[in-house]
Order: sequence, then C-alpha cells, then structure tokens
Amino acid sequence: MNLTLTALQTGYRDGSLTVRQLVDTIQQRCEQTSDYNIWIHRLSQAELEPYLQHLEDVAPDSLPLYGVPFAIKDNIDLAGIPTTAACEAARHIPEQSAFVVNKLIEAGAIPIGKTNLDQFATGLVGTRSNWGACKNSHDPEMISGGSSSGSAVSVALGLVTFSLGTDTAGSGRVPACLNNLVGVKPSIGLLSATGMMPACRTLDCMTIFALHSDDAHAVLTIAEGDDPADAYSRPNPFANSPRHYGHQNGPLKLAVMKQEQLEFFGHEGYAQCYQQSLAQIADSGIELVEVDMAAFIEAARLLYEGPWVAERYLATQPYIDQQPEALLDVTRTIIGGGAAPSARDAFSAQYRLKALRKQAQAVLDSADALLTPTTPRPYRIDEVQADPIRLNSHMGHYTNYMNLFDLAGVAVPTGFTDAGFPFGLTLVGEAFSDRRLLSIANRLQQLFQLPLGAKQAEYQALAAKPSGGDLRIDVVVCG
Amino acid sequence: MNLTLTALQTGYRDGSLTVRQLVDTIQQRCEQTSDYNIWIHRLSQAELEPYLQHLEDVAPDSLPLYGVPFAIKDNIDLAGIPTTAACEAARHIPEQSAFVVNKLIEAGAIPIGKTNLDQFATGLVGTRSNWGACKNSHDPEMISGGSSSGSAVSVALGLVTFSLGTDTAGSGRVPACLNNLVGVKPSIGLLSATGMMPACRTLDCMTIFALHSDDAHAVLTIAEGDDPADAYSRPNPFANSPRHYGHQNGPLKLAVMKQEQLEFFGHEGYAQCYQQSLAQIADSGIELVEVDMAAFIEAARLLYEGPWVAERYLATQPYIDQQPEALLDVTRTIIGGGAAPSARDAFSAQYRLKALRKQAQAVLDSADALLTPTTPRPYRIDEVQADPIRLNSHMGHYTNYMNLFDLAGVAVPTGFTDAGFPFGLTLVGEAFSDRRLLSIANRLQQLFQLPLGAKQAEYQALAAKPSGGDLRIDVVVCG
Repeated sequence: MNLTLTALQTGYRDGSLTVRQLVDTIQQRCEQTSDYNIWIHRLSQAELEPYLQHLEDVAPDSLPLYGVPFAIKDNIDLAGIPTTAACEAARHIPEQSAFVVNKLIEAGAIPIGKTNLDQFATGLVGTRSNWGACKNSHDPEMISGGSSSGSAVSVALGLVTFSLGTDTAGSGRVPACLNNLVGVKPSIGLLSATGMMPACRTLDCMTIFALHSDDAHAVLTIAEGDDPADAYSRPNPFANSPRHYGHQNGPLKLAVMKQEQLEFFGHEGYAQCYQQSLAQIADSGIELVEVDMAAFIEAARLLYEGPWVAERYLATQPYIDQQPEALLDVTRTIIGGGAAPSARDAFSAQYRLKALRKQAQAVLDSADALLTPTTPRPYRIDEVQADPIRLNSHMGHYTNYMNLFDLAGVAVPTGFTDAGFPFGLTLVGEAFSDRRLLSIANRLQQLFQLPLGAKQAEYQALAAKPSGGDLRIDVVVCG
Repeated sequence: MNLTLTALQTGYRDGSLTVRQLVDTIQQRCEQTSDYNIWIHRLSQAELEPYLQHLEDVAPDSLPLYGVPFAIKDNIDLAGIPTTAACEAARHIPEQSAFVVNKLIEAGAIPIGKTNLDQFATGLVGTRSNWGACKNSHDPEMISGGSSSGSAVSVALGLVTFSLGTDTAGSGRVPACLNNLVGVKPSIGLLSATGMMPACRTLDCMTIFALHSDDAHAVLTIAEGDDPADAYSRPNPFANSPRHYGHQNGPLKLAVMKQEQLEFFGHEGYAQCYQQSLAQIADSGIELVEVDMAAFIEAARLLYEGPWVAERYLATQPYIDQQPEALLDVTRTIIGGGAAPSARDAFSAQYRLKALRKQAQAVLDSADALLTPTTPRPYRIDEVQADPIRLNSHMGHYTNYMNLFDLAGVAVPTGFTDAGFPFGLTLVGEAFSDRRLLSIANRLQQLFQLPLGAKQAEYQALAAKPSGGDLRIDVVVCG
C-alpha cells in the first residue's frame, strides 16, 4: 500500500480504504520493522482512538489531511504522550501539542508515534540514543542520519505519509538524503517552534520529511503560520504563499560549488553520484554556474567550533547541571563545551558570521538557487560508534551554514550509488524562498523519476499545481 | 550668518558668499566658543586647504553639498587627521576617510574638525572626556548630552551646517534634544560603518545632526548607500528612497506611551513640555493613540544590564587590557563589566530580546510611528560628575531599546521649558522607515515653528519636496 497523499486520498474518497484499515496496516508494518529502532513511543490503540474517532463523522473531502498518518520527532510535543528528546531525565508529558502538531491534527492527520533521535537533537548520525542506533532504511548496517533519524526512516519504510523533524545544523536534510526522501528545512520562523524543545533557539526550525515534494508542500501549507507565542515565528510574505508552488518549468539557473571545494571524505560512490546528478540536470536544460562557496564553508565550521554550543547548554541546563550522567557520553562532551565561551566570544563569532553572510550574498544573488550535495558521505553505524565526534562533523559539511545564514533549503533525492544507497542534493535559497525551492525540487523529481523511499514505490509525476489555496481554505473551515 | 543648506546655497549661487569667506567666519566663531569644549581636533588652515581647493574650479550648482561645513565625531575617520574616540591611547591617524565622510566630501562638504565625545562613545552625557565636559549650547552649566556631544553643539552654535554622530543607545538623539536639533538615527546599515570605531557593532549606527529635517534629509541622501566592506550595511529598499521624503500632509496617527509609563525623573519642565507638545500636535489634527510600551522599556533596560557591554569590551580590548589607566574611571568601570558575561548570558538575553520584540510588533503596527520624549530630563554638568553612572542611565530611558529592536528614529525639537531649555520628541518606526519619519519630523517642525539651534535663527518653512532625486543624480556625476 502506497502512502503518498494522493494514494490515500483516492482510497478514502472511492471507499476502497478506511482510516482504521490503514492504521491496522501501519501497526503491522511497525511490528515488522521494530529492529530499526524508529520509535521512542508508538501510540497504543487506546491512544490512537481519539484521533480515529475525530474522523468518524467527517467526510474525507472535508479535511486536507484526512486520515494521513504522520510521525513526530520526540523533541516535539504531542499532548498526553511523553516527550523525551532521547533522554530519560528529560521525559515529561505535555498537556498541549506543539502549535504545528495541533494544526496537522485539526487538518485530519493521525499521529502514529514519537520517533527516535540523536539525544537532544545533537548529532547528524542517528546513533546517539539510548533507544538504539536508528538503522538506515536502505541498509541496516548504515546510519540513518540524524538527528531526525526515526522521522526519516518511518517515512522511507512506508509507516507514515510524512513526519516532523527539526533542523539546526542539518538534522532535517541529512537523514532525508540517506533515506531517499524530500526533506524541507523551512525558513526559520515559518513553522512555529512552540512545543518544540530547543537545541539552538536562534537557529532551530521544524522540518518535514515526505516521499515527494507535492506531499511535503501540502503538509507545509497546513503547518505554516505565524504564532504570536513564538518569538522566532515570522509572517510568511505573499511571494512565498502556497499559490507559488509548482511554477518552475521555465529557464532555471542553479549555482554549484567549484569543483575544488567539493568534499566527499573519500566516498567514491557519492562523488560519482554528484557528477552524474549534475550532468543529468544540465542535460535537461537547466543552467549550472560554478560559484565560490568559501564563505558558506567557513560559516559551517563556525557552528560547531563557535559559541552556539552555549545555546545547547542553555537548552539542556536542568539535566547537564544536575544529572550529567543522564546524558550520553558523546552528548555530554559536546554540550558540556557550551559552558566555556564568553559573551565576547559570542559577539566575535557573530561579527565574523555577519561578514561571511555579506560575502555569501553575491553568490545567492547569482542564481535561482544554490545546489549542493546534501551530505558528503554515509558511514556505517559501527564506524560512527568508534569515532563519534569526528565522523559526525563530516556529515554537516554542506548543511551547517544554512540556519546561521537564515536560508531555506530542500533536500531532494537524485540518484543511487552502484550499491543501491540513496544520494541527494539540496536546493538553497534566501529565507522565504521555500515555495521556489520546493517547485525546483518538484522539477528535479520529475526529471529523475526515482523510486520513492525504501519501498520502491514508483514516482508518480503528479503535475505540480498551486493546490495550496484550496488546502488553506479547508483549514479555515475546520480550525 | 545662517548656515542652513538653503541659506548657503543661495549665497554661493548669487555670489554674495564664497567658501573662503564662510570658513573664515566659522574659524572666528570657533575661537569665540572655545570654552564649550566642542573640538578634539579642529582643522588648521593647511589641513583645510585641499578641501577648499577641491571646490575652486567647481560651480556651486554642480555639487549638492558645495561648500557646506560639517563636523565629524572623533570616532569616525577623516583621512590624515587623528581619530581618538576621546582616549589618547587610541589616537591614530587613518589613511582613509570613513565611507560616509568620503561621500560627503565628494559632494562638496568641508570637514571643519573632529568633535568631542564621551570616551569610546560610552555615555549619554558629554562629560566623559579628557578634552573637558562639552557644554550645552543653551546653558553652559548643563550637559550637552552625549556621546555625540561636540557634534551636536557645533551645529547648535552655528559652527557647521550639519555633523556626523554615532548612536548605539541614544548618542545621536539625546544631544539633539538637549541642543534643539533634528537628530537622525538611521536604520542600522543605511549608513556604512566603515571607518567608524565600533561601540557595540551589532547595534551601532552613524547619525546626522542638523537644524532642520530638510537639511538632515539632504545629507542623509548623500551619505546613505550599501557598502560591500561593511558587514552590517544593508541596501535601502525603494519605499525608503529619497523621493519618499515630504509626503506626510494627510491623515496621521502617532502612538504615544500610556501616561503611567512616562518617566521624567522629577523634572517638571520636561513633563510640562511633553504634555504641551502632545496637545499642540493633537490640536493640529494628528491623531494620537495611547499604547503600552512595557516591552520597549524592558528592552531599554536590557541594553545596559545585559551582555551587550561585552561588545564594548571587544571594541576597546587593546586599551582596556594593556593600558587600563588610559581610560577614564567611569568608562573603565562600565566597559570592564564586559569581561564577565558568558556566551550563555548573551544568548539568554537575545532570547528575551526576541520575545520583547515580538510583543513590540503590535505596538509598531498600530500607528504611522511612535512618538516618545527623546530623553526624560537634562542634568547639570556638576550633578553628572558627582553621580556619573546613575544619572547617565536616566538619559537613555526612551532611547536604549531602539537599535536592539532594529528601529529607525528621528529626534525633533518641539518646545522650550520656561527656563528656555530645549525639549524634543522622537519619532520611531521600523527599519527603513527613515523617510517616513523624516517627513513627519518636517511636518512637526512646520507646526511648531521654533527658532533653530542656539542661534535663534527663525524657522524657514521650506516646503518639503522630493528633492533627493536631484541630489542623487549629482552624486553620480561627481562620484
């Protein structure tokens, strides 16, 4: 059973599928995939029941996400269900769902469970959890990527239609790449952070994983919205409204890194996939221009080497100060470093970042979007466990700068290595270019025609259309 | 001799005035006012000569600031002339003028000298300088306000047509108020900071003092412009371009503080002036609405109580670390506090600031601009010298939040106390509302018809017109 939004909606509307049938199927699939370490808490039948009952007297047509199953990274609140951020000491049961989770549920979506993550969303590997290393959907010896590990794998394995992750340094893009998914890292503040546990509050954002860009866009359209209670929430400008999705069929110019700036840390498969992807894109008539991305690379290094780790310390202070043993060794080592920097260090780094951002502007202004590898290479789980900090830092080479520079990004699959492991690229643009990036992602998915996720569902070239307007009206009706 | 831009341009164009005549007159006036402690370095005849020669073969009509004398706060570079920031240890002779100074000189303006300031631009009083307390232009026993003390007094006493100041916490607005001047605190990044010594780099901006808004606007139009070398420089949006100056004659709604939030620290004269000013504004048909400014007041306190003082430490680190005795006691005490805060403190304060900014949004959205007292009250020089930190902090009550919130402001005179001491209000708006604020300031100046500066020149109701377009073209011709 194909869990794309269109497939589910067709089934519900023609009567060939019911929500309870779908949930039963999902529960079976979850049992069959339990050794992937996807879930921290999967909803019991009793916990699911209110969501199922909510849909019972509702026509499938009347809710834009009617009966659509989704997963929630376990640093985002679902009312009445524990949030842990993969740390037992942080376990608590929130009374309210996150602002975004509420919107999705009101639109008819069904929360299936809370997903595994690198503890406190600190990591890009998916191995840093007491709930076990989350396994890759394509090769269980490989890392899933993180920190939104379970959220990515649950979509790739067909357990949910979409999932919520978070992204500070790359946590919503790296696992998308490693599991053959679209990963939307929206502009900071487009999705409310209310009910999301912070990692670096100035940089965090909630993200969306889906099999393809149409689904990701439909979910984004429900999820987005200014939240007066979230200081970092920002209103969406008209130019980024849902009606602007799907209009990227004309001339297109994408900026790519100079060859000598590319870094794959010795991974021939990813290096080849990258060149093949670019060749196919260029062959399709999209213009590619090489640009100097030195400022981006330096900013990426600033994130982990600079004072922003103090924000992680602030976010976890109750645990790291009073129960340091509650943190994994690697997590405690990294976050513990956040106590040292001074305010002078923080401002100095912000000055440097501002200078780099100014340099980056010319690059951003030179094309419709940037296009980079999403991550330099995958690793095996045992490799990361043996060398957890250094190999993790490799994973963020192409992602760390993005929130520091206040940019938007969409990770999109563009190929497989000879060993069948997924590879992908990330489209990068200014804040509130989300619709433009998603439209280009859609064009790339139409170009590459890859199977979706790990279940080998064939790509369905749904003609991208500005359907968001209809969806938005539905939300108003049921909100 | 009236030094307004129009008066000078008329004189030059009809041949009744030459640049050398003007400079001679100014030199005499400077001698007569030497006990005000306005200058740290006044240009000698030899130092002036290149600027005078530059104009000799040029028609007055061909340069928008032809023969217009101006003063430069001594934390802004003028090539070949020492910059000290009122600290001998910081004395150096820059090879290049500041980006903005260059533009003004290219447009024909003549630098008269470098002005006194509160050391390292740290203070709002004008008393913190080894070059002596700068005296108020209306009452030499009173403070001039600071930190741009000499820049304000030089304009008020008719020594220059305009001057450059800087403003982090209120340094471009408080001295404007206390000396009966228009003080433009532009949006951060509208005027390049290249060649300006930082105080708090994330908050600093260069400012303009002038006798009235038309002159301030003409100078702003020459001075502004994106500077690739300044990381904090920002391009000016079209809605804030010079053509938008002068169009504020229709319905206007200004937001004013709730009565119970007003604070004059016991100064009856300022309290009365405030009420009289509002009454006259309301009588003119401008709508006034009361708003809750609690978020602004809390943000104002954050500036001095929070971690931003670490930026002042960074800016003065070579001196405070190696020659602490080179700093005034009060300056060393304040800036020395910048060593203590941690990066966690810095980020915590940024979170609080962001939350306050979100609260402030509704207030900003409720009117065409905010209107507040510029400063709660003046003090005598001896009062401030006896209690330098506490009384200084009073001066920033209505100004400190502005750069933290990324807002623009224009201070405009609106009355005199019974003792003849100037009082004024500040218009506040979003970043890049500079032209709107200046246009409203012009309307207020037309309404109040006050004498200008301290020389009692009568107000000339120059019809505000979108003259900036012409000026901008001239710059292109001569740049």
